[in-house]
Amino acid sequence: MELKIKFMKWSAGRPVAILHKKIAERAGIHVDDRIIIRRNSHSIISVVDTAVGMISESEIGVSTEISSGLGLKEGDIVHVDLSLRPESVSLIAKKMECKRLSEKEVREIISDIVKNALTETEIAYFVSAVNLCGMTTNEIKSMIKSIVETGKTLNLGKRIVVDKHSIGGIPGRTTPIVVAICAAAGLIMPKTSSRAITSPSGTADALEVICRVDFTISEIKKIIKKTGACMVWGGSLGLAPADDKIIQVERLLNLDPESQLLASILAKKIAMGSKYILIEIPFGKNAKVNRKEALHLRGKFELLGKSFNLKLKCLMVETDEPAGNGIGPALEIRDVISVLKRESSCYNIESRSLSLAAEILELAGKSKKNQGMKLATSILNSGKAFDKFLEIINAQDGDINHIPVAKFSHDIFADKNSKIKEIDIKKINQLARVLGCPANKAAGIYLWKHKRDKIHQKEKILTLYSDSEIELREAIKFYKKSKPFILK
Amino acid sequence: MELKIKFMKWSAGRPVAILHKKIAERAGIHVDDRIIIRRNSHSIISVVDTAVGMISESEIGVSTEISSGLGLKEGDIVHVDLSLRPESVSLIAKKMECKRLSEKEVREIISDIVKNALTETEIAYFVSAVNLCGMTTNEIKSMIKSIVETGKTLNLGKRIVVDKHSIGGIPGRTTPIVVAICAAAGLIMPKTSSRAITSPSGTADALEVICRVDFTISEIKKIIKKTGACMVWGGSLGLAPADDKIIQVERLLNLDPESQLLASILAKKIAMGSKYILIEIPFGKNAKVNRKEALHLRGKFELLGKSFNLKLKCLMVETDEPAGNGIGPALEIRDVISVLKRESSCYNIESRSLSLAAEILELAGKSKKNQGMKLATSILNSGKAFDKFLEIINAQDGDINHIPVAKFSHDIFADKNSKIKEIDIKKINQLARVLGCPANKAAGIYLWKHKRDKIHQKEKILTLYSDSEIELREAIKFYKKSKPFILK
Repeated sequence: MELKIKFMKWSAGRPVAILHKKIAERAGIHVDDRIIIRRNSHSIISVVDTAVGMISESEIGVSTEISSGLGLKEGDIVHVDLSLRPESVSLIAKKMECKRLSEKEVREIISDIVKNALTETEIAYFVSAVNLCGMTTNEIKSMIKSIVETGKTLNLGKRIVVDKHSIGGIPGRTTPIVVAICAAAGLIMPKTSSRAITSPSGTADALEVICRVDFTISEIKKIIKKTGACMVWGGSLGLAPADDKIIQVERLLNLDPESQLLASILAKKIAMGSKYILIEIPFGKNAKVNRKEALHLRGKFELLGKSFNLKLKCLMVETDEPAGNGIGPALEIRDVISVLKRESSCYNIESRSLSLAAEILELAGKSKKNQGMKLATSILNSGKAFDKFLEIINAQDGDINHIPVAKFSHDIFADKNSKIKEIDIKKINQLARVLGCPANKAAGIYLWKHKRDKIHQKEKILTLYSDSEIELREAIKFYKKSKPFILK
Repeated sequence: MELKIKFMKWSAGRPVAILHKKIAERAGIHVDDRIIIRRNSHSIISVVDTAVGMISESEIGVSTEISSGLGLKEGDIVHVDLSLRPESVSLIAKKMECKRLSEKEVREIISDIVKNALTETEIAYFVSAVNLCGMTTNEIKSMIKSIVETGKTLNLGKRIVVDKHSIGGIPGRTTPIVVAICAAAGLIMPKTSSRAITSPSGTADALEVICRVDFTISEIKKIIKKTGACMVWGGSLGLAPADDKIIQVERLLNLDPESQLLASILAKKIAMGSKYILIEIPFGKNAKVNRKEALHLRGKFELLGKSFNLKLKCLMVETDEPAGNGIGPALEIRDVISVLKRESSCYNIESRSLSLAAEILELAGKSKKNQGMKLATSILNSGKAFDKFLEIINAQDGDINHIPVAKFSHDIFADKNSKIKEIDIKKINQLARVLGCPANKAAGIYLWKHKRDKIHQKEKILTLYSDSEIELREAIKFYKKSKPFILK
């Protein structure tokens, strides 16, 4: 049917169209059905809501996602049809039976995710099937290819492009320090990061405290040309739009299935044109994975890396405590700056960053074997890394002088003399989330004490920060209930 | 924060609220977040969209689900807060790891589904976890209890209340005939049916062609008082609102996990106060389940029936072809009326209906063992069943004289002399869905030939019906591609 466009001045996060209830009923279209809206040779798939009174029977109300997606003007005539359930829904059903998908089938699902042809609920079914049934190496390869094909890519020519990725789960930011050292050494490092999935703050969340992290591909090219590196959010780049949507759905349940994690990381590295890649896999009792899972993951990464012709190395790091003192976007970026300024080693942030930078320098041939640490340390100590960091932050329209401080804070003191046997990272992460991380940049936790530290009665052990009094109160309750510090 | 209600005159199928973009940003609320809207002592949980221009910064736009749910007037002041992610999300995550849920945990999930505290995407995660991990008998019992607790119930006192349920998958309607016979025999039969999940037409979809099927509990009581029975849609009754939402999410992927099927059926029977229950389990090569699965299901039904103190019997029926000639709501109800009028046996509809009625008459003590068939047949032949059927349809504000006929039809003829070896029910179901079933009541298939029939070249074998020329063309294409008739 033909309908007249009415702007709703409404951003719904996805294409949403509103039809008059009568018209929808007459056309057999129900709330939450998908329709296809056509204008000339362009089309967009949208979810439907119905209304009475808001729009007339000859109109279709559209969210800004539709009007900008199709370049529409108010009053334009569009052609509207019920969109049939896409073929990929039956492929998701197939995966729900734990059957293998061919490359063509994976590509169909991924391309429908990008085209908005699949709803979030259908994507959730796909994620949970992958989570419970797993994927073969061939399926993961197909995922990587499809994700790269349906996204944008960065071509930096024949220069030595390196990258680093940590599979996360442990708070504390080493990435900005590693990027600063490597770029200062003359390597090209187009670093994209994700926002938090299961942790209180992703690298992108932390960097956003001091600079922009959302750029277009051509803006990034300029930043890299100027500074040799960038530190941006991968999500706004359109590098892997399918993966971005999948992550959005995974977040609802804090899911992060292994095969999706592998595909997500490698697709983004390939799209950015990186050839030399270091993958950090923190493991340990409280990390995302244990030693066995970490070894398994390393095997998978190496196998996939080879098949995509990458120089890929995995660095396994046993960690059973947060890196650094701060947890939460603002508090973590403060730690980073302290290390770069040589004011503090911020517990273990300095040593972890140096190890990672050393590995990359060796992997990319900037130093001989076993000489990477020496080079990395001299770059950090000389202030060159800090200069490079400021140069990059500046190129990304930022500065380090406006880091927010939370409105409310609460100190927690030891109630007896004791020693910290362990810190439960999962509980610490949950605590930071209760405080408002990662949406609230200033929220988080400052650790005054670490593993193996002795603590005296009435000594301050941590400070909680939040911009909401309610969340702070909730967090104090949660702290008392969950006891993240295990004392001996 | 306090905001002023603005009606959007908008029914979105679930509570949806619209905040001004600035206000949402200031409060840290994102698109698709959940908020809690409070007015006096009442509250409702809603999903958020943001808008610019549509509403002012002091207003909140609400869908009709919110305005009617809270009894709001335009301009009312409400209190709006970000709703924390409910505890049940972590319980769904637990089930995703295939861990067992306690009765308390199941109750929490079910009650949050009813309260709209869980989004469809989160429910999809729950459904897929149940689909892939299964549920223990104790978990299913907890599901049944929780579904019944969170819904309405019908109390019909000490009369003999019977019910019948077919686990479906095979087109063809026997239920209205069985209800008519049993009610004519003096039994109380408060039959609730679902709409189609995987088939082209549920019993409720077919009955809706000739009468209302959406009633309140008190209306149903009146219908039963008048006629001894009813044939209504379970979904509008609020008997099992949790189950209704779960089914809505299952439909997206044509899922129907065993444990959910058991819980769904038994919860509704218990809520309706039925004590004598016959479960029909069609099995066979093309049915929903095979013999082994049918036996397994029977065991589960009997175990659960015992634990809820029901007189429950399972009737296993080997079926490998559709019952009756018509497939689709209007065509199926025509078959039912033909049998009741004694005009035709409609292939095997008559014999299947009589077997089911006979079992119920025996189960509830209306006839001696092995005498049920004799009684059922005499009630059908005497015209008492048809009279009772008309009485019920009349009490449900309907009549049988206005059955719609599809606008477009297409006959399919045999292209050679042959014999029908088999009819692929899944493909026939898909074909009917392509034609527009169940939303389009008149759409469907009429089978002129059945299994084991000889067919001659140029003889008519089936007719396709649809109200849409496009869907009819799609269906012809699908028929040619899928070949649902297997000839020998």
